[in-house]
Amino acid sequence: MSFANCGLPFYVGDVIEDERALLMASPELFWQRFSIRVFTNTEVVSIDRQRGQVAVQELESGQPRIERYDSLVLAPGAAPIRPRVTGTGLAGVFSVRNIPDSRGIRSWISSRNPRTAVVVGGGFIGLEMAENLARRGLAVTVLEKLPQVMASLDPEMAVPIHTHLTTEGVALHLNDGLASIQELPERGLVVVAESGARLQADLVILALGVKPDVGLARDAGLAIGARGGIVVDDQMRTSDPHIWAVGDAVEVPDVVTGQETVLPLAGPANRQGRVAAESIAGRRTAFRGVQATAVVGVLGLTVASTGASEKGLRRAGVSNFQSVYLHPGHHAGYYPGAKPIHLKLLFSNIDGRILGAQAVGCEGVEKRIDVIATAIQFGGTVHHLAEAELCYAPQFGAAKDPVNLAGMLAQNVLNGDMPVADWHALGDTSALLLDVREPGEFADGHVPNALNIPLSQLRIRHGELPVDRDIWVYCGVGQRAYYAVRFLAQCGYRASNLSGGYATYLAARDAGVAP
Amino acid sequence: MSFANCGLPFYVGDVIEDERALLMASPELFWQRFSIRVFTNTEVVSIDRQRGQVAVQELESGQPRIERYDSLVLAPGAAPIRPRVTGTGLAGVFSVRNIPDSRGIRSWISSRNPRTAVVVGGGFIGLEMAENLARRGLAVTVLEKLPQVMASLDPEMAVPIHTHLTTEGVALHLNDGLASIQELPERGLVVVAESGARLQADLVILALGVKPDVGLARDAGLAIGARGGIVVDDQMRTSDPHIWAVGDAVEVPDVVTGQETVLPLAGPANRQGRVAAESIAGRRTAFRGVQATAVVGVLGLTVASTGASEKGLRRAGVSNFQSVYLHPGHHAGYYPGAKPIHLKLLFSNIDGRILGAQAVGCEGVEKRIDVIATAIQFGGTVHHLAEAELCYAPQFGAAKDPVNLAGMLAQNVLNGDMPVADWHALGDTSALLLDVREPGEFADGHVPNALNIPLSQLRIRHGELPVDRDIWVYCGVGQRAYYAVRFLAQCGYRASNLSGGYATYLAARDAGVAP
Repeated sequence: MSFANCGLPFYVGDVIEDERALLMASPELFWQRFSIRVFTNTEVVSIDRQRGQVAVQELESGQPRIERYDSLVLAPGAAPIRPRVTGTGLAGVFSVRNIPDSRGIRSWISSRNPRTAVVVGGGFIGLEMAENLARRGLAVTVLEKLPQVMASLDPEMAVPIHTHLTTEGVALHLNDGLASIQELPERGLVVVAESGARLQADLVILALGVKPDVGLARDAGLAIGARGGIVVDDQMRTSDPHIWAVGDAVEVPDVVTGQETVLPLAGPANRQGRVAAESIAGRRTAFRGVQATAVVGVLGLTVASTGASEKGLRRAGVSNFQSVYLHPGHHAGYYPGAKPIHLKLLFSNIDGRILGAQAVGCEGVEKRIDVIATAIQFGGTVHHLAEAELCYAPQFGAAKDPVNLAGMLAQNVLNGDMPVADWHALGDTSALLLDVREPGEFADGHVPNALNIPLSQLRIRHGELPVDRDIWVYCGVGQRAYYAVRFLAQCGYRASNLSGGYATYLAARDAGVAP
Repeated sequence: MSFANCGLPFYVGDVIEDERALLMASPELFWQRFSIRVFTNTEVVSIDRQRGQVAVQELESGQPRIERYDSLVLAPGAAPIRPRVTGTGLAGVFSVRNIPDSRGIRSWISSRNPRTAVVVGGGFIGLEMAENLARRGLAVTVLEKLPQVMASLDPEMAVPIHTHLTTEGVALHLNDGLASIQELPERGLVVVAESGARLQADLVILALGVKPDVGLARDAGLAIGARGGIVVDDQMRTSDPHIWAVGDAVEVPDVVTGQETVLPLAGPANRQGRVAAESIAGRRTAFRGVQATAVVGVLGLTVASTGASEKGLRRAGVSNFQSVYLHPGHHAGYYPGAKPIHLKLLFSNIDGRILGAQAVGCEGVEKRIDVIATAIQFGGTVHHLAEAELCYAPQFGAAKDPVNLAGMLAQNVLNGDMPVADWHALGDTSALLLDVREPGEFADGHVPNALNIPLSQLRIRHGELPVDRDIWVYCGVGQRAYYAVRFLAQCGYRASNLSGGYATYLAARDAGVAP
């Protein structure tokens, strides 16, 4: 009656070996424990709102039946988007919505011994499927219509994922959509891309995302919103006062932008279920909205985010924001094994309110996003992040945790101590580019046309710089450039820090957002 | 000039192999980068506040000198507590304050090849030293005057640490203080405990905690507080307006209890340094106080806490609080490898404000404490924890994260849905004890005098229970007891949940706080 759909990719990957681990509850348990009757294999085919009843059909017998209700809760979830192209019904082409789907993929793997797979779609499920198919020994190609995987991230933040996937042997075919799937006699399938590219595959996974499953609600005349989800109030009540709706099928407000959104995630769905139950039971609690906190693990990399992305803010018409980039180690640098977390923090440049954060790295990534998510929940500002008091021992964090550092950088921007320049604007500026790394680092690679004066020589050589021209300063990740900007500002130069340093430049360049 | 003192135990353990990794900055770097002159090997011996100058002594030449100041910052730190017993000066007896101390221990290990060690003190440094000496192959005994290690935790929360240490081969000698240390010719040292017990040791570590190093400040007539630290305002200014003090040497307010405290932790010390600098530079920022967020790793176990403990609240005279215990997996149970986190949440029973949390487990422990610490920073309530939106994928968390669950349990207590009973009160109650686990679990061990009616039979067998007597219900960890309490309450019984279930009972019993 209830299964762990977030576990399906891992069941395919054989990380979860026993299908029964995915089963959360049974009708027997619900009856014994709660006196609640659960009908499985029973489809609700229509809702008669006037009479307060639903027409159901028992799927095995085909028997129709009527059930009465005082209060009705709709939790139909979301359905995988099926692209309108030929070949999606061929044997060997799968979606990943339920246990039978996953069982089908497992069985295809064990019986056909496929060697290659194409995953269509580079979102959460697509990447989890890529990981788990790679784990099963298949050569995997991800076909993605956007120029990046993980559309929820800003493009430059997806670059470390691209690099990691490629390093781990997953091929990326970006910027190209699905045109059709063809069957070759004796030679498996071919995924044909919109560009004409032909990707051979013994197994194809369709992971183009999901859309709210609102057929029943729409047929019953319930209000459907602009984003395609069932419209509900903060009690999860639909346009019919006797009907509630929860989960992936509903539209809910985004707490950062204030706009309605559909967000197919389990955490908010759980909270919605509780709010609807309280509402039906006559207790007034309210669903506070969603903030899109999410994480995905892919072949050892962790990608997490909360709140809005930069492109999400622009889409929502928000422009008074600022961002900082940083690349701190996941724990103190003096303790061996620290791995960088690539972090982007977005905040209001009016009052410092935190608007969103994205992080990519190997360890401790989702911890930092959870902390920032909690701060967002309270309407917190970057000042709160700067003075957060978090766990520190050298194997777990740092006296200045990445979260503190993000807050401090943002404070420096807000209070004018450290003006930042945007790598995106590199093509449109007449500013002097100043690289303050040591000559060896500069020689290993630098931004075209940059002047190199190492921080260690800046106090004696700053006279070489123009006083009447913007100076955009960068180093490896931003710390030395900060010192340089402070010094130059005190000397009267017009200096800004190219946030995130050369590391962010490379990502922005590879994402095509910097020249 | 600056070293990573939190890394010292790991340098002893050879996790950090190169001493230079512990050095954070050099006088040369500070001069080159900031034009700041740093005098090392130079002791300030007195402060002349009238003249605005300090008397310093160069330690190598013995040369005295005077330095003038406009603003003076004292950051002397804390010094290890040296017990007033005989033998602490013997060769082979060490404290762990600085690099020479650690170097001495390393050299003792490599030259004397010690086989046994006694660590006196079971706090943060004591446990980190126990781990690192065990890592070097020594048989370690921890001698601790209290009946528990980690005095900052409530006793029942320290029990999993005791179990883990013992399992990992570290011997615990609790409830016994240090009387003396003796040298045996040719046979190393003997640590004599107050009980008369004699613990052989080839190496002894004194880790009895630290106290603010306030000699210089006291001699200068600066105000010293009741907790032994330098008194400062929220600008970190001492009783002399030209002198600031920061770090382990100062007293600061605890944000939960409002009382002054000394808290030798690096995170707050860092924040204090920034506040003092801003104050001297004429910017008005304020130090917001401390919340005692801390973590320690010991042989694979992680122990973390934030805010007040139950005993800390009682010591502060706070009584209107409540606690819940839970033992959730660190990630979704259907994904293999979930390990329990033992979690205790303390909250106001008036308004639900979060007062503190303690957690012990193997994975994801400090993440949950960091989230709760962030909520405490905002004055958050258990309701906020219940509706926190945190990262969820099955390898990272759960749709209802342990933090959400802790908040939900506390909500159930606050709104009366789930009255809780306290294991501490087990000896003083006439309540009926009801064990709702299955008969096999009951047979494997149960609380004395408990009646067993499994949850699965409760709806048919509840008539066996008295309606006129308190019923205290427990199961394994508390979830089935919750269902039982809800059902019994709806039937008119006076039922309460023994929070944390049998797992918490065993810990409370082993800690001596339950009969």
